[in-house]
Amino acid sequence: MIYITRREQFNAAHKLFREEWSNEKNLEVFGKCSNPNWHGHNYELFVTAKGDVNPDTGYVLDLKILKDIIRRHVVDKLDHKNINLDVDFMQGKMASTEVLCVEIFNQLELPVKETGAILHKVKLVETENNYVEYYGR
Amino acid sequence: MIYITRREQFNAAHKLFREEWSNEKNLEVFGKCSNPNWHGHNYELFVTAKGDVNPDTGYVLDLKILKDIIRRHVVDKLDHKNINLDVDFMQGKMASTEVLCVEIFNQLELPVKETGAILHKVKLVETENNYVEYYGR
Amino acid sequence: MIYITRREQFNAAHKLFREEWSNEKNLEVFGKCSNPNWHGHNYELFVTAKGDVNPDTGYVLDLKILKDIIRRHVVDKLDHKNINLDVDFMQGKMASTEVLCVEIFNQLELPVKETGAILHKVKLVETENNYVEYYGR
Amino acid sequence: MIYITRREQFNAAHKLFREEWSNEKNLEVFGKCSNPNWHGHNYELFVTAKGDVNPDTGYVLDLKILKDIIRRHVVDKLDHKNINLDVDFMQGKMASTEVLCVEIFNQLELPVKETGAILHKVKLVETENNYVEYYGR
Amino acid sequence: MIYITRREQFNAAHKLFREEWSNEKNLEVFGKCSNPNWHGHNYELFVTAKGDVNPDTGYVLDLKILKDIIRRHVVDKLDHKNINLDVDFMQGKMASTEVLCVEIFNQLELPVKETGAILHKVKLVETENNYVEYYGR
Amino acid sequence: MIYITRREQFNAAHKLFREEWSNEKNLEVFGKCSNPNWHGHNYELFVTAKGDVNPDTGYVLDLKILKDIIRRHVVDKLDHKNINLDVDFMQGKMASTEVLCVEIFNQLELPVKETGAILHKVKLVETENNYVEYYGR
Repeated sequence: MIYITRREQFNAAHKLFREEWSNEKNLEVFGKCSNPNWHGHNYELFVTAKGDVNPDTGYVLDLKILKDIIRRHVVDKLDHKNINLDVDFMQGKMASTEVLCVEIFNQLELPVKETGAILHKVKLVETENNYVEYYGR
Repeated sequence: MIYITRREQFNAAHKLFREEWSNEKNLEVFGKCSNPNWHGHNYELFVTAKGDVNPDTGYVLDLKILKDIIRRHVVDKLDHKNINLDVDFMQGKMASTEVLCVEIFNQLELPVKETGAILHKVKLVETENNYVEYYGR
Repeated sequence: MIYITRREQFNAAHKLFREEWSNEKNLEVFGKCSNPNWHGHNYELFVTAKGDVNPDTGYVLDLKILKDIIRRHVVDKLDHKNINLDVDFMQGKMASTEVLCVEIFNQLELPVKETGAILHKVKLVETENNYVEYYGR
Repeated sequence: MIYITRREQFNAAHKLFREEWSNEKNLEVFGKCSNPNWHGHNYELFVTAKGDVNPDTGYVLDLKILKDIIRRHVVDKLDHKNINLDVDFMQGKMASTEVLCVEIFNQLELPVKETGAILHKVKLVETENNYVEYYGR
Repeated sequence: MIYITRREQFNAAHKLFREEWSNEKNLEVFGKCSNPNWHGHNYELFVTAKGDVNPDTGYVLDLKILKDIIRRHVVDKLDHKNINLDVDFMQGKMASTEVLCVEIFNQLELPVKETGAILHKVKLVETENNYVEYYGR
Repeated sequence: MIYITRREQFNAAHKLFREEWSNEKNLEVFGKCSNPNWHGHNYELFVTAKGDVNPDTGYVLDLKILKDIIRRHVVDKLDHKNINLDVDFMQGKMASTEVLCVEIFNQLELPVKETGAILHKVKLVETENNYVEYYGR
């Protein structure tokens, strides 16, 4: 079993905010992350797939295929977008790094499986000081 | 003459957008950076001051003082904010990296001068693939 | 189960040195790391906690709380200090990256548990060329 | 059980190419990586060993010894070399990151074992956008 | 005057080698960089243009245009290539970082000028331990 | 004129402290940097030389020679040392980044000149958040 990881990036706006709470309550719970007019990040995404090495190609998985899967299912939907407003798979969900990481895993699990490899981990880096990792259920 | 640089960071939302243009014209000129619902970045800011070394302290400028100046005049106004909407010194200006870099320089020039040092350069990094530098007029 | 990591840093002096050994024996075993007058590092600390996502906040653990725990129990005791001389939880212990990493884990385990999350890993980076990881017993 | 990691680097040329296939077929399967005149990379290698802490030294494993093992068995054979042509342990094998990572693990497993530690993982970074990890069989 | 920088990358093979010298003389002068079977690098290229800010767009120069210029005139010719054998503008020249940096500047100077901006600097990073900068004649 | 830069590193202990002042006065002026028991850093040193390209070698200056100069005159004296106590060229001087940067420049100026190149700049990075640059008198 070999693990191969592809890095992608996207720049997006978001806020941590519950519409059913007042601005004051949101500020109390989420601090400056609740700014009503949004803020944003350069997100780094590390997608790890695992599998056996194909003896003909030396590949677990052609990285061009993995890149295309990540871009089509995730990055094209998030890059230069508002996570709370513009992203189909985040509708009605908290735009926290944790929730976003889980939902990105869910978007990628099946397409990676169809290549014959297995999605092992999604790591989502929000700033140089924090990141989230999810390995699926 | 010695040059000393302090790095600070802020996470902010913005868009490249002229209100007097249609969404289509904005898209044509600014591409995905014009997304009406905003996007955002982890900005890195490098502020360089120059001066002579104080023989008592070995300092050009106490970095704690430089840090306080940058935070009070720039970072506290930009971090977890919307550059187009929330920042007093960006009102009515394009929120491009170039314009933001010049305006940050303008915010810092006088406070740095009051310490006895001279503001030499502001470098503003928007993504790992692009940055802007400004040395004043 | 989601894993969330916070990075912190501290700058500290240390030496690898056994007082009951001669300087020569220390030099033989620890090389230049045994310099009697100390040397130092910019340490990077990555603390990983795991848990379930709170459906109200989208958080495993509020990063402000994790940051406060790390600073109070670890970074404030180590930053701009001498690891061998100044740090209560390192008294009588070798100031190697391995031992320091284990002791940092021990300092953090209970405070993280009190938040409802579980301390999963401490990673301590001494230089760009070496780091240590510890997952507890 | 503590995990300690040493980073090393090497700069090498390679191509992804099967001699029994035509240039066209190689181009179809491997894309620009099949360029007959080679291309190259700055590879980063992270070698992780695990073991218990020696109470005398505070070490799992003296990093000078681990560095010497990696250099003698791996880096000296790969650095400023052609992976397809110059490297004894890659003869007749595909020069993919996956295969190279496995073969580096195989080169290091026994020498690390002889120190009393256990080789846990080899991570091989080909570009800032992709890397491979292998934990042995 | 504002300075804007775009980063691009390419992975290439090369050797430092004079055909009119013996392998021994090449080894004596160029060390391991003269390996007859090539070696390679992940090169990082930083291209800095300068100019005034366009008041309509807030741009010195649209980064998409700068990116296209760099890719068409430089990166597409170098990426996944052999610098000594495959690159038209390096024919008959030493493939050192210094010479390559100057020749990249020469390739870019006119196309950047046609945008209305001025090519200020080319910085070429060969490894994390060395880079070359050239500002033109 | 081409500029070539070599990066080196050293890990050292220091404090900002005037012996003729009390601990309290030192704390007041230098803050936590005055800790009597020292602290330390991973310093990164970037040495830039300039000159014309040698048409035979394509070099401004053989990087192996520049590396040897930096190690012999600077890094071997600073690495795993105490800057205040162990370094001949820092005796009686403040161990600030500014002063250290100037003194490193002074150590390197003549040896670089003897190669036929000119020392252009020394950049000394103390932490990821601050660095100093000096271009000579």
